[in-house]
Amino acid sequence: MISKNQLKFYSSLKEKKHREQEGYLLIEGLRLCEEAVAANLNFKTLLYISNFPTTDRSQKLIAACQKKNILCEEIPTKALDKLADTKNPQGVVAIVKKPERNYSDFLASNPQTIIALFEINDPGNLGTILRTANWFGVDGVILSANSVEYTNPKVVRASMGSAFHLPVFENAALSDFLNDLKQQGYSLYYADSNTGTNFYDVTYAKKSVLILNGETAEIDEDIKQVSHEKIIIPGEGKSDSLNVAIAAGIILSEINQKRN
Amino acid sequence: MISKNQLKFYSSLKEKKHREQEGYLLIEGLRLCEEAVAANLNFKTLLYISNFPTTDRSQKLIAACQKKNILCEEIPTKALDKLADTKNPQGVVAIVKKPERNYSDFLASNPQTIIALFEINDPGNLGTILRTANWFGVDGVILSANSVEYTNPKVVRASMGSAFHLPVFENAALSDFLNDLKQQGYSLYYADSNTGTNFYDVTYAKKSVLILNGETAEIDEDIKQVSHEKIIIPGEGKSDSLNVAIAAGIILSEINQKRN
Repeated sequence: MISKNQLKFYSSLKEKKHREQEGYLLIEGLRLCEEAVAANLNFKTLLYISNFPTTDRSQKLIAACQKKNILCEEIPTKALDKLADTKNPQGVVAIVKKPERNYSDFLASNPQTIIALFEINDPGNLGTILRTANWFGVDGVILSANSVEYTNPKVVRASMGSAFHLPVFENAALSDFLNDLKQQGYSLYYADSNTGTNFYDVTYAKKSVLILNGETAEIDEDIKQVSHEKIIIPGEGKSDSLNVAIAAGIILSEINQKRN
Repeated sequence: MISKNQLKFYSSLKEKKHREQEGYLLIEGLRLCEEAVAANLNFKTLLYISNFPTTDRSQKLIAACQKKNILCEEIPTKALDKLADTKNPQGVVAIVKKPERNYSDFLASNPQTIIALFEINDPGNLGTILRTANWFGVDGVILSANSVEYTNPKVVRASMGSAFHLPVFENAALSDFLNDLKQQGYSLYYADSNTGTNFYDVTYAKKSVLILNGETAEIDEDIKQVSHEKIIIPGEGKSDSLNVAIAAGIILSEINQKRN
């Protein structure tokens, strides 16, 4: 049976401070637990209420966890409700280790498309960008300092689990990373909201970095300077701007179409 | 001075039931108030705290309201905090009449691009779709029953005011509307997440309707049947699906590029 102290520890992971200290995160719901298993995350435990294993899908999840020797524990509904952030955690949560990524290994894997994000603070936007990036086969994401953590529960939910699959390097000094990537032969495209080349007319290099900035952030001048091309998504001028996740989706779709 | 009863009435507009009964909505913050003025919405009142009119932008807003004979009232900070839904309403809120749109007038205006939305429940998604639609010059939106109301405060905020500018027809029996539009010469494109023509290879007709469904909704078979073409956005298969607002953005951008 789960102890009071364990429950207290798990519950503490709702706070960023404790997630950072401990290197663990709390995830909720069937879908995210399934994705975490599929992504081979390191589980501390899977916790579920007594009437959880009643569907095929939930039984499959428990079986998959057992096969990987993941600790599976039943907990009282009240305890699960204390842990859960969402109204409907579907009777299951898990404590998983934050994925650890090695940047040198990532570069050695010869990534083709990388996105570099400057100060994305909205968890929904970051999560949606990760989901979209994963859809279009982006190889990795570099996330600047002063962004929301990519393992924030709202980011993870909006990413529909893509946060577990995509290599994300956070707290990055973005211009250092970009200068380095440029030296390694990457072409850098910075999406601007005012002026630039129509993204539709750009021939994207095989090794491309797409740079986007958060909606309330003024991007650093040195990031603009290091970019090879400033691109825009033309509209009819009836609203001020596009949401950053929408802009990411439109450009990534175009890069994907031109590659195939 | 604003009375207790007035404050109670304004505050009641936070609830959908009262918004529907009264036909008014409560909007918050400088940007949305500016957009509501620009969209010529019918204001009941603009309410601001004593130290609001200290910037150029806030003074311009009050001047624009006065020019239109909109009632502008100072209220105590405590009263504004009671009305506001957001943590940072920037010292200003307004009570505005819900826009009234006439569908016959809309059709008579010869709209080219229309989007039809089936059961979009997430306010952030609907707001982002409206913002994106406005950016790409979509002429109007038809929103099915069992969707979030387009004047829900979260929708309005995510739309960045586009909810005031775009003609939206809600609570629609979607298949009736679509059958009618088809008879009037519109080509209907239904975005599917599984199979269909690559959206990139489609020649969009001058009069087009793009149909999208909410992420948890199974679209009605008769809506699929009435469509001329089922389209997909190809990905690399690394995540299950795209967010509906992202899908809307990608296809609307393509329609816009092909038109220009």
